[in-house]
Amino acid sequence: MASEPNSVRVVLVSPRNPLNIGAATRAMANFGFSDLAVVAPYEPHWREAKSAVGAEDLLQKARRTQCLAEAVADCTLVIGTGTLTHRKPEQPVVSLPDLALLIESKGAHGARVALVFGPEKHGLTREDLSWCHLLVEIPTDARQPSMNLGQAVAVCLYELASRAFSRPPAESASPQAIPAPSTSLDLLAAVIEQTMTAAGYSPRAMLPANRHDLRLLLRRLAPSALDTRRMLGLFRRILWRLEPGPKRK
Amino acid sequence: MASEPNSVRVVLVSPRNPLNIGAATRAMANFGFSDLAVVAPYEPHWREAKSAVGAEDLLQKARRTQCLAEAVADCTLVIGTGTLTHRKPEQPVVSLPDLALLIESKGAHGARVALVFGPEKHGLTREDLSWCHLLVEIPTDARQPSMNLGQAVAVCLYELASRAFSRPPAESASPQAIPAPSTSLDLLAAVIEQTMTAAGYSPRAMLPANRHDLRLLLRRLAPSALDTRRMLGLFRRILWRLEPGPKRK
Repeated sequence: MASEPNSVRVVLVSPRNPLNIGAATRAMANFGFSDLAVVAPYEPHWREAKSAVGAEDLLQKARRTQCLAEAVADCTLVIGTGTLTHRKPEQPVVSLPDLALLIESKGAHGARVALVFGPEKHGLTREDLSWCHLLVEIPTDARQPSMNLGQAVAVCLYELASRAFSRPPAESASPQAIPAPSTSLDLLAAVIEQTMTAAGYSPRAMLPANRHDLRLLLRRLAPSALDTRRMLGLFRRILWRLEPGPKRK
Repeated sequence: MASEPNSVRVVLVSPRNPLNIGAATRAMANFGFSDLAVVAPYEPHWREAKSAVGAEDLLQKARRTQCLAEAVADCTLVIGTGTLTHRKPEQPVVSLPDLALLIESKGAHGARVALVFGPEKHGLTREDLSWCHLLVEIPTDARQPSMNLGQAVAVCLYELASRAFSRPPAESASPQAIPAPSTSLDLLAAVIEQTMTAAGYSPRAMLPANRHDLRLLLRRLAPSALDTRRMLGLFRRILWRLEPGPKRK
């Protein structure tokens, strides 16, 4: 079941205060989640956070990565969190009370879901968000929308755990129903980017902006694993045509 | 509307760590609640908690009381929180996802609701709970049910704020629909206790247990304000009959 707690990974991006990492971990244990990834934490001794009451083992076995792409590489549905007060989102936005249902409907077959939280001060950056298929908004008061990290994690996990419900028996998955993991989309994006450059489509100055837009586009399309492999084959072939010669024999 | 955030008071009983008081206050601001009562806090300087980010004013104007009875004196629906792993509750228990609806249905006319949280280590005592009409249970994992205080407050207030919905237009309140505040129930209990003693019904050794049971009984009955005044009149009259003489002319 897609919204089964254990199938959702909690990803904390560049958390500054180990007490918040510990508090987030405690909330995971409270609501039955166990897959934690910590991206580039600020403090080296974050695994010793005293606030992970009853969840010390979970903190010990958390994976640590250097970047968000690595933390969500095998995920098929990456969900960013945060307030949207000061920015116009580039992805679809879902309100937290509707999230469990949405995960359920999107993740019928072998979904691997990541729920991504940004650093305490400013939340997820625009760059971070470009790895996300969609954003979830916690319905907070407009006068004071900024939540504490540990409390935001607790509220999201409470929602997922308490709204989880049983799905009707799964039909056998058609090949098109198996979504592509994040890392396949990144690979495809890299080959498309090479192709664009080889075709003289993307001037050097525009490269970062085009890269960002392409990453978002692929998440919007959300191609199946099969279609992603097909597109990859296609662009590799185009690239081979565009750049013939010794390096691409 | 009964589940309108501002009509719910958050009561923290004997919190030990000011950081938790601050975190609870921050969550109140996040979800649009503003009525905080702190009962017998452990640290004298709790109003300076740095964790009340964006909610400093709310912390400043919080009321401080010596006992729980005083903090909920004017409330008509007192709801205790906590895990029930190790005890058999003496009140009805409602699961948090159903709480907003229940408040809505109970509190149609002028309800004043208090949501009561116990101290960090052990939660609300049996004595604390005897002031509660009902208990709410946060559906946590049985292997790790104990939540951080600030996170528990955040989860409860999120639930109340996000499930709040508009009621059909209120009918004009019949006198019987106006519930009695907690302090009226305490007054009635005191007069009933005097009456029991005067009637030789309650031996001295049994007094604390009978007092506890009586407090619970009145919350179960949940009499209207009008009926509470009637019962008070009745027991005062009985008492006057039982104890005639100079002190009750």
